[in-house]
Amino acid sequence: MSPRVVGHSLPRMDAPGKVTGTAVYASDFALPGMLHGKLLRSREPHARLVRIDAARARALPGVRAVLTAADVPDVRYGGALKDETVLARDRVRYVGQPVAAVAATTREAAEAALAAIEVVYEPLPAVLDLEAALAPGAPLIHEAWATYAAIPILHREGNVCHRARIVVGDVERGFAEADRIFEHRFRTAMVHQGYTEPRAAVASWDSSGQVTVWSNTQLPFEIQNTLAEILELAPSKIRVIVPGIGGGFGGKLRIGVEHVAALLARRTGRPVRVLTTSEEELTAAYPRQGTRVELRTGVTRAGRITAKEGRIWFDTGAFAGSGPGVASVATLVLAGPYKIPNLLLEGYAVYTNKTNCGSFRAPSGPQANFAVESQMDMIADALGLDPLEFRLQNIVREGDEGPTGQVLAGVGLEECLRRAAAAIGWDDRRPAPGRGKGLACGWWTTTGGSSGVYVKINPDGTVALNTGAAEIGTAALTGAAQVLAEELGVDLADIGVVSADTFATPFDFGAQGSRTAFAVGNACRAAVADLRRQLVGLAAAQLGVPADALELRDKAVVGAGKRVTLAELARLSQASGGGLIAHGTFIAPPTAYDAKRVEAHVYPAFHSPSFHAHAVDLSVDRETGEITLHRYVVAQDVGFAVNPAAIEGQIEGGVAQGLGQALSEELVYAEGRVLNPNLTDYKMPTALDLPRIESILVQHPSAVGPYGAKGVGEPPNIEPPAAVANAVAAAVGVRVTTLPITAEKVALALSGETAP
Amino acid sequence: MSPRVVGHSLPRMDAPGKVTGTAVYASDFALPGMLHGKLLRSREPHARLVRIDAARARALPGVRAVLTAADVPDVRYGGALKDETVLARDRVRYVGQPVAAVAATTREAAEAALAAIEVVYEPLPAVLDLEAALAPGAPLIHEAWATYAAIPILHREGNVCHRARIVVGDVERGFAEADRIFEHRFRTAMVHQGYTEPRAAVASWDSSGQVTVWSNTQLPFEIQNTLAEILELAPSKIRVIVPGIGGGFGGKLRIGVEHVAALLARRTGRPVRVLTTSEEELTAAYPRQGTRVELRTGVTRAGRITAKEGRIWFDTGAFAGSGPGVASVATLVLAGPYKIPNLLLEGYAVYTNKTNCGSFRAPSGPQANFAVESQMDMIADALGLDPLEFRLQNIVREGDEGPTGQVLAGVGLEECLRRAAAAIGWDDRRPAPGRGKGLACGWWTTTGGSSGVYVKINPDGTVALNTGAAEIGTAALTGAAQVLAEELGVDLADIGVVSADTFATPFDFGAQGSRTAFAVGNACRAAVADLRRQLVGLAAAQLGVPADALELRDKAVVGAGKRVTLAELARLSQASGGGLIAHGTFIAPPTAYDAKRVEAHVYPAFHSPSFHAHAVDLSVDRETGEITLHRYVVAQDVGFAVNPAAIEGQIEGGVAQGLGQALSEELVYAEGRVLNPNLTDYKMPTALDLPRIESILVQHPSAVGPYGAKGVGEPPNIEPPAAVANAVAAAVGVRVTTLPITAEKVALALSGETAP
Repeated sequence: MSPRVVGHSLPRMDAPGKVTGTAVYASDFALPGMLHGKLLRSREPHARLVRIDAARARALPGVRAVLTAADVPDVRYGGALKDETVLARDRVRYVGQPVAAVAATTREAAEAALAAIEVVYEPLPAVLDLEAALAPGAPLIHEAWATYAAIPILHREGNVCHRARIVVGDVERGFAEADRIFEHRFRTAMVHQGYTEPRAAVASWDSSGQVTVWSNTQLPFEIQNTLAEILELAPSKIRVIVPGIGGGFGGKLRIGVEHVAALLARRTGRPVRVLTTSEEELTAAYPRQGTRVELRTGVTRAGRITAKEGRIWFDTGAFAGSGPGVASVATLVLAGPYKIPNLLLEGYAVYTNKTNCGSFRAPSGPQANFAVESQMDMIADALGLDPLEFRLQNIVREGDEGPTGQVLAGVGLEECLRRAAAAIGWDDRRPAPGRGKGLACGWWTTTGGSSGVYVKINPDGTVALNTGAAEIGTAALTGAAQVLAEELGVDLADIGVVSADTFATPFDFGAQGSRTAFAVGNACRAAVADLRRQLVGLAAAQLGVPADALELRDKAVVGAGKRVTLAELARLSQASGGGLIAHGTFIAPPTAYDAKRVEAHVYPAFHSPSFHAHAVDLSVDRETGEITLHRYVVAQDVGFAVNPAAIEGQIEGGVAQGLGQALSEELVYAEGRVLNPNLTDYKMPTALDLPRIESILVQHPSAVGPYGAKGVGEPPNIEPPAAVANAVAAAVGVRVTTLPITAEKVALALSGETAP
Repeated sequence: MSPRVVGHSLPRMDAPGKVTGTAVYASDFALPGMLHGKLLRSREPHARLVRIDAARARALPGVRAVLTAADVPDVRYGGALKDETVLARDRVRYVGQPVAAVAATTREAAEAALAAIEVVYEPLPAVLDLEAALAPGAPLIHEAWATYAAIPILHREGNVCHRARIVVGDVERGFAEADRIFEHRFRTAMVHQGYTEPRAAVASWDSSGQVTVWSNTQLPFEIQNTLAEILELAPSKIRVIVPGIGGGFGGKLRIGVEHVAALLARRTGRPVRVLTTSEEELTAAYPRQGTRVELRTGVTRAGRITAKEGRIWFDTGAFAGSGPGVASVATLVLAGPYKIPNLLLEGYAVYTNKTNCGSFRAPSGPQANFAVESQMDMIADALGLDPLEFRLQNIVREGDEGPTGQVLAGVGLEECLRRAAAAIGWDDRRPAPGRGKGLACGWWTTTGGSSGVYVKINPDGTVALNTGAAEIGTAALTGAAQVLAEELGVDLADIGVVSADTFATPFDFGAQGSRTAFAVGNACRAAVADLRRQLVGLAAAQLGVPADALELRDKAVVGAGKRVTLAELARLSQASGGGLIAHGTFIAPPTAYDAKRVEAHVYPAFHSPSFHAHAVDLSVDRETGEITLHRYVVAQDVGFAVNPAAIEGQIEGGVAQGLGQALSEELVYAEGRVLNPNLTDYKMPTALDLPRIESILVQHPSAVGPYGAKGVGEPPNIEPPAAVANAVAAAVGVRVTTLPITAEKVALALSGETAP
């Protein structure tokens, strides 16, 4: 029987509220009597905090609290490394670091209070880029950081807060086997996730010492634990609820303003809302790290890669944040989706005096892939090979090993490459002067972790899905609900979702890493297995038909010519059987890998990996360097397309974000200050800047995902920079090795000057 | 090992918020942009609605909606009988019936709008009391009511909307065997539950057509279903959340203002709050029915009861409400906790043009028990028997049959009677002129139904209990949490409760009928059975100890000299095992009874019945009739005292309410209008009016309840009227057979005039 609900492009469940403007986001959430919280932020990239005088601010009308470091718990928190504090203590380490927090009856009063706080800084030598951070004798951003708590695996040295490594075979032997060795360097800029809704939180304490925080976090359970550390409370005293999120893209994985709202609310005894501005977002959020990449690749004349040595340095800013994890993941991206017998790959997370960088849709993916896939074309060009053929010679196929020894299954990469190339018209790579086509491919993980759901059949036969995951705009919960509907034999319209409330919903590892539909969908399958037993048991008694003659179909249990509806069974059970309720859990099975190949690696294998190829057709204006995108094709191996239209939406959005990073987006720093902290000067693409994006859904099922599905949300963001760089080179022979590929860089190169 | 948590008088979990005034009740709940809703109520007890003109009201500033019957779905709803409408349509049937609803930006604007609505009534003959309703040719309150939907069992005739009957043996033969036959009549007044917080609801619709209602209902799942009928929506589109309740006592079982708030919010597109006033509460809520009771009892000279014929008529007001159920239950109370071989007992619910009566803590209990236990003393006096000895001769004991044939177990009635009598000093029944002691005893049910819970162990080892039941002020959820803590080997302080949210919590039959601690506690035991398996399995793998050598103790799994804490196991499970979560369900087993003994009975047996005896010592002022209470003793068979102090609180509160009904409370009706609709003239006892109340907890375990517990909340409300009446008779020889037993009635009787 072909599936009724999965595999169909059903409208997403969260659409009506978002389209009509009635959806409530965290930033809309309000409580009666609520105060407005604001942060005073450092004006210096690195300085000693000599004095903070808040007396004048505290005396202003409407001001209910001014907190400095002395007023909040002296706690260091963080993920892999506990190097952060709520407010700067003694020293500031980046422009934008919170120094004081204010709560007042109006936003204007809060802003007036910020202006009235006097801060005296004594500037210290600042470390403003990777080179300065890595230079011998560089000032240490955290002098005492060897004493901070950290996960044991962390490899730390100087301003390097982590180094992860993959070693396979012997690269020197591999280079010896090569006919040609290619060395290239690349750089990528720091970019912001560009979510529509700024970070927001409302906190309210009750008399039992419990705090409820309404936040637009992607990870309510993670925020609950972080708040527990910061507030010095048991996690069970902290309820985190996500009313709605206007985009996250990884930028809302870590604590935003939740702790500030909670501390101000605790001090004032009133609910407090904190909401960031665009300027705060662009100077003091968790953007994607800028990087430097060095690749050395050995290749035979025939185009077989024999060895690769690669290093990527992430400018992680003043705190480690997700740097150690991102540096680790990067090594798997540096390997590329290729069979290479000898590898030496290193990822470094490096402190500088900038904002603390974080996770952005496929963290490390676009940066590392830009280098890897640019170099693939550069090598192919140098060897006189067709870039597609060169890739096809080296890519991984079903049953091959990944770089760390995992056995790859459901590998649709060749199909992706061939179909993307066919769709873009690869046979005619340079159809006109100044016009060219580029290809890039890659692989990515479906993040594991566990998800639990409660599923309840209502007395009208509809179904309540209760999940700890938040719908962050990806339609992932629609996908999970489709899986639930399919398994239960009901319609998607029958499913109602309650989500992301640490007190009311079961644990979920959270809306991150392309895992939500995959993991929550699987948890739903587990719950339905239980419900099916309950339903069939009840129906058997009710119909007088043996249980093994019964099945779930069309909102009923049917068999032996008899039928009882889910609604009837739910009413029966509610009256005398406790209701039809089940708890289902999915636990991602571990991915086996060869531990001898990795060192200090926090993410040594890709779980249920996906494969993808992107192709672009563009023109370059030889005079201005301006790039015009004509067509963009994505062939993505999604395993199984639970909701094709929703996946196409993810592909379109991911490509748009990737093209922004490829062409125009950059947080421009000078002397430790962001020069373009506004949405006029920080240039994200609009609909008018984008070509038509065509999606080809390739389906090589994964063994673990529901119906074979793989994670689909992050991948579309990975390949656009490399695809564009390769197409620009094809069009006008200019190879830009730094992101973004601005018109200025292309024009300078075309005019014979060095690209910056 | 003696229990660590259950059986101990631990402070209730909801106390801090309530004591410090920071708890949020439904009436405190507010949303930004919220409108204020109000109801226009009928001024006539029975009339044709000739015309409603709302044009002037709609034009007033701040008024956002005025709804009349024409604007709301034409739906009849109700419990056993669907005879109610949201707003009166064509005809009003009691003073206070809603005629129109208004939403405005302020409460004042809403009140102004009510005043501006013009209503023209054409009065109809009204049926103002039971006698008028039952008189031949009486006007029918519902002319077409035979066509209304109803449960099939309902027995309807004239203005009688239900009659339930118990027939055992042959009363005429029983009377023939008797030496004396006693006939008495009693009356009781209509009384209000006296909860502190008026009924309140806030409703808010979202763009997906889903409505969330924050209400102080005792039964969120029942209200969800009722709203589904009224709003003509699937229940799954309706989320009911109980933020907190300031008392219910059965008065908040049925729909209050939730539907009005939801309809006004749907019309205006804004959140709406509706909150009743004291006047609305005392004229148009769900008070306890006034009754008339007739008893005919045959007794041998030696004091053995041979037969009893009894009838009780409930004045249920203009709609059936809980009348059919209450009339049914009443017959079991009329039987009394006595072995009587021949019974003919009938309960009638009768329509009149008064407010629709409902359920009040032990519905029918005080009224029927007042008659039964007054008569027991009257018979004992007439036969020259000691009332205690007369009762002991006739009471049920372990293994006896109840009136409908259920086999009684855990029967602690004799112990209750003997200990209450001993404590009050029964040997000296008339210690001084004008001073006397009275006894009364009874039995009551523990309502069944099902309860589900989710239980989750947090990563700090604390425990989240997720229940669909609301904490209505009885400490029942504290009791359930104690059971959970005991079973899991943690402390009560480790348990956090999320409750009463139809979307976030599993189904629960609700906070009614003394069932919450009993049923939710049992559901917790089921959940822990599952969690224990999970914990021991995980710990066995972790410790390398066989599962059967492990046990839960002191927040850990221990065995073979090893130990792993719940916190460690929860973190382990959250990291890789989906978290420690279980769903537990309790389903009350059916109570077997003899179906041949009942007719049209909706409640034919008492589930896990409790037994109780009350004794009071009081003085009567012979001049004024004023009654002074000296001591009050309750001996209650609670099965097992999960939290003795909380049960004592229930006993003290229940006795206080019972004494109010015994001595002073009455909704005084004249011409269909309540004459005392305010808290000055409706006289509830204050702390100063009450004697010291002493509790004796008798513990004959029930087979079903957790640790043997029985329902404890309702019973203390049952016996006070009879105990007081018997003590007054003992003190001054005056037998008052109508409630309340006011000083005026006593004084008139003492002066030789007929008691009214």
